[in-house]
Amino acid sequence: MGEISSQALEGLRHKIDEVDQELLHLLRRRLDLVADVGAIKHKEGVPIYAPAREASMLAKRRAEAEAMGVPPQLVEDLLRRMMRESYVSEKDVGFKRIATDIGPVVIVGGAGKLGSLFAQLFTLSGYEVRILDKEDWGDAETLCAGAGAVVISVPIALTEAVIARLPPLPPECVLLDLTSVKQAPLAAMLKVHAGPVLGLHPMFGPDVSSLAKQVVVVCHGRQEQSYQWLLEQIRIWGARLHEAPAAEHDQAMQLVQAMRHFTAFVYGVHLKREHADLEQLLQFSSPIYRLELAMVGRLFAQDPALYADIIFAQPDALARARHYLARYQEALAMLERGDKAAFCAEFDEVAHWFGDFAEQFRSESANMLMVANDGRVG
Amino acid sequence: MGEISSQALEGLRHKIDEVDQELLHLLRRRLDLVADVGAIKHKEGVPIYAPAREASMLAKRRAEAEAMGVPPQLVEDLLRRMMRESYVSEKDVGFKRIATDIGPVVIVGGAGKLGSLFAQLFTLSGYEVRILDKEDWGDAETLCAGAGAVVISVPIALTEAVIARLPPLPPECVLLDLTSVKQAPLAAMLKVHAGPVLGLHPMFGPDVSSLAKQVVVVCHGRQEQSYQWLLEQIRIWGARLHEAPAAEHDQAMQLVQAMRHFTAFVYGVHLKREHADLEQLLQFSSPIYRLELAMVGRLFAQDPALYADIIFAQPDALARARHYLARYQEALAMLERGDKAAFCAEFDEVAHWFGDFAEQFRSESANMLMVANDGRVG
Repeated sequence: MGEISSQALEGLRHKIDEVDQELLHLLRRRLDLVADVGAIKHKEGVPIYAPAREASMLAKRRAEAEAMGVPPQLVEDLLRRMMRESYVSEKDVGFKRIATDIGPVVIVGGAGKLGSLFAQLFTLSGYEVRILDKEDWGDAETLCAGAGAVVISVPIALTEAVIARLPPLPPECVLLDLTSVKQAPLAAMLKVHAGPVLGLHPMFGPDVSSLAKQVVVVCHGRQEQSYQWLLEQIRIWGARLHEAPAAEHDQAMQLVQAMRHFTAFVYGVHLKREHADLEQLLQFSSPIYRLELAMVGRLFAQDPALYADIIFAQPDALARARHYLARYQEALAMLERGDKAAFCAEFDEVAHWFGDFAEQFRSESANMLMVANDGRVG
Repeated sequence: MGEISSQALEGLRHKIDEVDQELLHLLRRRLDLVADVGAIKHKEGVPIYAPAREASMLAKRRAEAEAMGVPPQLVEDLLRRMMRESYVSEKDVGFKRIATDIGPVVIVGGAGKLGSLFAQLFTLSGYEVRILDKEDWGDAETLCAGAGAVVISVPIALTEAVIARLPPLPPECVLLDLTSVKQAPLAAMLKVHAGPVLGLHPMFGPDVSSLAKQVVVVCHGRQEQSYQWLLEQIRIWGARLHEAPAAEHDQAMQLVQAMRHFTAFVYGVHLKREHADLEQLLQFSSPIYRLELAMVGRLFAQDPALYADIIFAQPDALARARHYLARYQEALAMLERGDKAAFCAEFDEVAHWFGDFAEQFRSESANMLMVANDGRVG
């Protein structure tokens, strides 16, 4: 490069660095303001996620950006990332306690990952939290005495047995579970407890930094009015509640969760048996290719028992897995015949069935792929 | 909410809005500076993606953030998003032309999506670009006269026939293709042209906003020295080149690209035949669940012929698809026996085989899932 150009480039880069340093100061100020907002929300019991405020704020900034010739999508993406941080810091301030007159919250399996997360959230909201884990069953009666709520957070395979083992609970105590199937645990809870019963499925892993925007599925059991405080408390933590009949929930989980885990498992086995060279595969990595591999590989960083539970516990998973096999064999026959026309015809039918969702999924995943590419290092 | 709290909250939100407006002004300034950088890079022929500069800049900002109590990851994510925009705007300035003494670049299939992207990049770099599409074969000889490079960008199924149909090319002309398989097209090109031959596989879709950080696989054909200018040109566009033998490339593509497309196709058929209610499934959407659906659904927003080509063109895809079937049947047998122990044992073996990659994939995908959640609307 010519010396003059080189100096000019250095000068410009220096100015960009100055802009970026100003950005740091802005972020510092913003985090302080957000902490103050968190303190007020905490005091007043306002949910940390305010969808309307968020949407109107984004719309205003997008319009201003447009007027200034700044790409609106850039501004929206940056603000969304900053808001994620706000939710995390608002969480640390603690939450308003909604039910001030109820007894302790007992978390059965509270030493597990999901149990710990809920123990932390209840504690941050000022409730007395008691943990009932494997080794505590000798004290179960004492721990549950006067309980305002008992939360079951144990592996699916143990849920029903653990529910059956509970000591008698106070009549007004809310009995609820966090299992990823809902029909069987709900039935088991309704059987052992005559008071309020509630089934929840938190649709996120225990490693989320906050509950903001996360979904919790709510399957009602008995005496809805008696656990409104608890649903309100979860809303304050930032989650969105989605009510559904337990059977509908379980069916949806089979179709996506259980079957996708199962096919990802088979894919992992396939890669191993084909002696795939992962290092080499990643060198060819396009964002989509890498994401495909990541969606398979991520499974194997986790607890096999958890996945075995999810796959084996779904009542109709086996039937669905057999249906999938039949479809795979059909498609393989097309491949064997070299029948591209049949493949394309079937493809078009499925595309028609997906309708507008196909395009929606394409554009959503395109955005994720851009983010994946942003993070790539040279 | 109490009136005083309500006023205080309003005041704080007003201040946050002011901070965000200052952010807009910073962005405007940054984009202007980046445009100036782009102009210099254009003049000097410096690649738009500068990995070392990017890494050292991020390290400095992270350290400064740390010292100010601002989360370093927040700063890194914001800067990466801003840099993506920079690459796009630098692209618009145009690129330095590396080979000043070569004839026109002829793009066979230049009216297609990928062909158009390359036509645009060559044009932005000051080359004379000629398009040879379906209806232009009558003028093929005229179009190829004096060509410096002929780029084949047609569907896989047509590649070899199109290559065979080319008129004789000038001896120093570079003949190259952009197909997603490499062995057969390379062999076909070596057969018809005695001069420099090169196989490329751009590992990205034609809808990328810039080539920054994208991978282009390079399979050498003949007379490497004669097409160094072209590789250098692609580097200036921002891409990373990955050299690989054609056979190794094709094998990797079968394992991931063809098989993942094929299983996603089967999954789409499965969802349709099981009468899945997509609207309802999305209401249960956790980020991972939604991403799993998106990775299937995105396929069906695209051209069936393109996917049929990719799947049917891979020489060993059929054998691999049969292997996968066998593994699926094995896993299904575990499910039928209710044999969780065998499932967990196999899972552990695969996890061991994935090694550190499993954790790497888990953490990469966790970050993507957070981004997916950022974009969720109430």
